[in-house]
Amino acid sequence: MTTMRVTAGADFQMSSPAPTPAVFMIRPETRGAHVTLAERWETEPFVPFHDYLDIYGNSCRRLTLPAGTFSLRYDTLVEASGDLDPYEPTACEHPISEVPDDALVYTLPSRYCLSDMLFPQAIELFGGLAPGWSRVQAICDYVHEHIAFAYGTSTPVTTALDVFNSGTGVCRDYAHLAISFCRALNIPARYSFGYMPDIDVPPPYSPMDFCAWFEVYLGGRWWIFDARNNVPRRARVTIARGRDALDVAMLTTYGATSLQTMTVRADRAEDHVRTLA
Amino acid sequence: MTTMRVTAGADFQMSSPAPTPAVFMIRPETRGAHVTLAERWETEPFVPFHDYLDIYGNSCRRLTLPAGTFSLRYDTLVEASGDLDPYEPTACEHPISEVPDDALVYTLPSRYCLSDMLFPQAIELFGGLAPGWSRVQAICDYVHEHIAFAYGTSTPVTTALDVFNSGTGVCRDYAHLAISFCRALNIPARYSFGYMPDIDVPPPYSPMDFCAWFEVYLGGRWWIFDARNNVPRRARVTIARGRDALDVAMLTTYGATSLQTMTVRADRAEDHVRTLA
Amino acid sequence: MTTMRVTAGADFQMSSPAPTPAVFMIRPETRGAHVTLAERWETEPFVPFHDYLDIYGNSCRRLTLPAGTFSLRYDTLVEASGDLDPYEPTACEHPISEVPDDALVYTLPSRYCLSDMLFPQAIELFGGLAPGWSRVQAICDYVHEHIAFAYGTSTPVTTALDVFNSGTGVCRDYAHLAISFCRALNIPARYSFGYMPDIDVPPPYSPMDFCAWFEVYLGGRWWIFDARNNVPRRARVTIARGRDALDVAMLTTYGATSLQTMTVRADRAEDHVRTLA
Amino acid sequence: MTTMRVTAGADFQMSSPAPTPAVFMIRPETRGAHVTLAERWETEPFVPFHDYLDIYGNSCRRLTLPAGTFSLRYDTLVEASGDLDPYEPTACEHPISEVPDDALVYTLPSRYCLSDMLFPQAIELFGGLAPGWSRVQAICDYVHEHIAFAYGTSTPVTTALDVFNSGTGVCRDYAHLAISFCRALNIPARYSFGYMPDIDVPPPYSPMDFCAWFEVYLGGRWWIFDARNNVPRRARVTIARGRDALDVAMLTTYGATSLQTMTVRADRAEDHVRTLA
Repeated sequence: MTTMRVTAGADFQMSSPAPTPAVFMIRPETRGAHVTLAERWETEPFVPFHDYLDIYGNSCRRLTLPAGTFSLRYDTLVEASGDLDPYEPTACEHPISEVPDDALVYTLPSRYCLSDMLFPQAIELFGGLAPGWSRVQAICDYVHEHIAFAYGTSTPVTTALDVFNSGTGVCRDYAHLAISFCRALNIPARYSFGYMPDIDVPPPYSPMDFCAWFEVYLGGRWWIFDARNNVPRRARVTIARGRDALDVAMLTTYGATSLQTMTVRADRAEDHVRTLA
Repeated sequence: MTTMRVTAGADFQMSSPAPTPAVFMIRPETRGAHVTLAERWETEPFVPFHDYLDIYGNSCRRLTLPAGTFSLRYDTLVEASGDLDPYEPTACEHPISEVPDDALVYTLPSRYCLSDMLFPQAIELFGGLAPGWSRVQAICDYVHEHIAFAYGTSTPVTTALDVFNSGTGVCRDYAHLAISFCRALNIPARYSFGYMPDIDVPPPYSPMDFCAWFEVYLGGRWWIFDARNNVPRRARVTIARGRDALDVAMLTTYGATSLQTMTVRADRAEDHVRTLA
Repeated sequence: MTTMRVTAGADFQMSSPAPTPAVFMIRPETRGAHVTLAERWETEPFVPFHDYLDIYGNSCRRLTLPAGTFSLRYDTLVEASGDLDPYEPTACEHPISEVPDDALVYTLPSRYCLSDMLFPQAIELFGGLAPGWSRVQAICDYVHEHIAFAYGTSTPVTTALDVFNSGTGVCRDYAHLAISFCRALNIPARYSFGYMPDIDVPPPYSPMDFCAWFEVYLGGRWWIFDARNNVPRRARVTIARGRDALDVAMLTTYGATSLQTMTVRADRAEDHVRTLA
Repeated sequence: MTTMRVTAGADFQMSSPAPTPAVFMIRPETRGAHVTLAERWETEPFVPFHDYLDIYGNSCRRLTLPAGTFSLRYDTLVEASGDLDPYEPTACEHPISEVPDDALVYTLPSRYCLSDMLFPQAIELFGGLAPGWSRVQAICDYVHEHIAFAYGTSTPVTTALDVFNSGTGVCRDYAHLAISFCRALNIPARYSFGYMPDIDVPPPYSPMDFCAWFEVYLGGRWWIFDARNNVPRRARVTIARGRDALDVAMLTTYGATSLQTMTVRADRAEDHVRTLA
C-alpha cells in the first residue's frame, strides 16, 4: 500500500442581506482511508462557530453568516491512499439478516433515492444477474452509460427517478440512481462525497476536485463505487456519508444568501506543503 | 397532573414462504410522557431476536420470520398522562440559529415530507401568519379540513404532495402534509406514532388504538400536534419518532410475507391489570 | 459451531424502609455470542421503570423500589454458544497506536483496577514474557494460583492491590487483578459478567450460575479470559462490560435497602422451555 | 450577559526516544458557555492525527509522537462569557430518582474520587447541612481551607483520600476532594478543566491560565464550582469533563517521552486577534 500527500480545501465568498444560518461539511473525516496531517479554518470576519456530529456521524460546522460579505477558507493536508480504489470481485451480497443494524437504514428509500419507485426497473435490469460485486459493477456501468453528464440539468428537487427518465445529470445524480438500484435489490448503499485530486486521470474526463460517489456493503464491509467516473481513482478524501445529497450537503443555508464564488482544491502535495499550517 | 394506567400491545399473525427478515417498532419508549410498568413479548415459534437503537434513538426489535406461520404478541402496561395534550399558545418559533443541532435534521425534506415541493403552498397559505403556536395550529386546521379521511387511499409511495393534491389520506398522511408545511417555514417537525386509547373521544371519530401524529419544536421543546384528530387527547403512548413514516414503521419486512391479522390494543387499565406480567 | 439453549434469570426479594432508587443490570446483551429468544420481567408490586444505555452501551433498567417489600423476577431464554470459550494462541498484542479509539479507555486505571499501583509487579512478573495470548494466559495462571477463593473476603472498596496483597477474593477480584496486570502492560482489558450454566464443569469447582470474567483486546478483537475458573467454559451469556465491577454492577441502590434473597439461574434448556414466555 | 474575546492555546515541546502514542485534550468544547471564532493546529514535523470523542463526549486528538523532537502549537480565539460564574443559591439538590440517566455515572466513586472511602467524613462534615447550593458551597469552603496549595505534592496516584489526609495539593486535588464529598452525599459531581485568563483576579492568587474545577448537578442543570479559587471568575473556557483527572488529562502518553516545555496561554483578546487565523 502506498500513500500520497494531498492538500485540499475550499473557499467560499458569500453575500447575505441578513444574518443567515449555515452548516458546512467540508472537513475530511479524520479517520478513514486517509489521515489528516494539518488543517486550518479562516473566516473574514470572525464569527462564532461550533462543531457537531450529525446522525450519520459526519462532522458539521455551524455558524451564522453575517449580513454583508463573508468569506471562509478551509485548508487541510492529508495522507491519502496512493493506490487505486480497492477492487474485490469476490465480495458477496449479504442476505438482510446478516446486514449490521446500522446499515439497515441504507436499504430504505430516501428523498432523492426512490428505490421504491425504481423497483421494477431494478428488477428488470439487474434482477437476473448473479449477486455480488459484479452486479453492483453492472449497475455502475449501466448508470454511467445511461446518463449524459451535463451541468445545470439537475435542481434541488431532482430525484433518481427524474434522472432515470431524463438521462442527464451531474455526479450526485449518477450516485443517486445507482444507489436506488442497489437498495431496490436489498443491497445497502450510501451516498458519499469528498475531495478528489486529478491524478493520472484518463481522458476524456476533465479535472474535478470535488465529487460525489457512493459506497456499497458487500462481503462484510463498505466499498467505494463511482458511477460517474467508472474508473478506479487514487487519493479520494471522503468528507461525509449519508442517505443522499440532501442529508450530506457541502453547504446548507437557511435564508437568502448569494454564493459569489466557491472554489474547491485538491492537489498532490509537493514542496509547498510547508506553507499550510 | 394526573396519570392513567394503560394496557397496550399488538398481535401479529404472519405467514411467509421463506425466512423473512423483519424489524418491529411496537415497544413504547421507556422514558417520556409515560412510564412503563411491565411488558411481555411472546412469539410462536421461539425465534432469535435482538434489539437495537436506530439513528433516531428508537428501540427496534429485529428477527427473522420463519418459513410458515408465525405469531408475535406484545403487551405492556404503562402509566401515561391522564391530562389532555399540552397546550402552550405562547411557545414561540425559533430562528434556525437557536434550533439545537439534533433538531436540524427535522428542518429538511424527507421521502414523504416534500417540504421543498410544497414550499410555494406553505408560503401562500401560512407565510403571512404570525409565527408561533397559532401558526402551527393553523396548519393543523388546514390539513384537518383539506384531507378527507379514507382508508386505502394511500400507498407506500404516497407523498405529502400527493396527499395535498388528492385531498385524501389516513393518519400518516395528515401528519406528513402538516410536517411538510412546518419544515417549509423552517419550523422543525418530526413524525411520531404510538398507542392511543379511546378515552372521552368526541364524535364523530371512531375508536382507533394506533395512530400517527407529529411533534413541533417551539419555545425550546417538542410539542404534540395531531392534524388527524385535531382535538386534544389523553394518554398517548409514543412508540417512535423520526423524519416520516418510512423511517419509523411499525413493521418493516424484507421479502414476501403475508400479514394475516394485526390487532392493536390500547385501553384504560382496570382491575385486569394483574393479568399482564 | 454448535449452539445450546440456556434459560437464565434472577430473582430479587428486597425490603426498603423508604422509596429507594435502583439500577438493575440483569438482561443479557441482545447481540453477541448468544441470541435472545424470549424474555419476561415481573415485579410485585408494579412500579414504573425505564431502560437506558450506560456509557459503555450496557442495557440498564432503572426504577424506584417502593417502601416495604418488593420482588423482581427476570427470565430469559437464549441460544448461546455450545462450544468452549474461543482459544486463539496466535492473537497478538497491539501497539497502542493500533488500538481502536473506543478501547483506549480500557488501558487506563479505574477504581478497582489499580494498574498504576501494580505496575512494578506487572513488569517484574510478566514484563519479560513474549507478548501475546500466552502472556495474558500467564497472567491468568498467576492470578488463579495467587488468589485463594473465599466468600466474604472482599468489600465494596477492595481493590486489585488489596487482593494482590491479601491473596484472597471472589470472582470479581480475580478479574480485577488480572485486568490490572494487563493494563499495566498497555494491553486493553475490560471487566465482564453474566450468566454461566454449569455444564461439564470439572471438579473441584462447585456450580455457579453468575460469574465475573474479563476480556482482552488481542489480534484485532476482544477475547474472553477467566482467571477464576481458568478452564474454558461453554455457554457464557454476557450481561455487561465495563472498566470494573463498580461501573457494571448487577444491582446499584441509592439508600438503605435490604436484599433478603437473591437467586440467579442459568441452566441448559430442556423440554421445559415452553413455559417461559 | 456580556461576552469577552479570549485567545487561548498551548505549546508542547517534547522529545521521545521512540515513536510514542499520545492523546491531547486541549481544544475547547465548541458548544457551551463560550463559542469558538477561529482555531489553528501546528505540528513540527507534520504527523498524522485523527480526532475522536471519548465516552464523555470530549474531543480528543490522537497521534504518535515521532522519535526525536516534536512540537505542537494550538491556538484558538473564543468568545467567552464576560460575566462571573453563575450563582444560583436556590438551585436544589435532586433525589436520585430525578437525576438524568447520563448523570448517574457521576454519583459513583472513581479512581481519584474515593467517595466511598470518604463517606464517613462527608456525612460528619456536611450530612447535617441543609441540602442545596449552600451545602455544595460549604464543601468548597471546607476544601479551600483544608488544602494548602503546593506544587509537587501530588503524583499520578494521589487520590482524594490522600489529599484529605495530607492537606496539600494542586487544583486537581481540590476538585477531587470536593467531588468526592458531593458524590458521597449522592450529589452528581464531575471534574472539568480548561483555560482561564487572569482577569480581575483578587490577591493573593497568582495568574494561572490553565485550571481544573468541577461541576455539580443542582436544580436541573450543571453549575461550575471551584474549590481552588473559591471566588467567582470570568471567561472560563472549558476543554473537557469527566469523572476525574485520570479520564480527562490534557495529555496522555504511552511510553517514555520527555515533556521539555509546556506553556498554556489564556488572555483577553485585544487588537492582536487579527493575527490568529
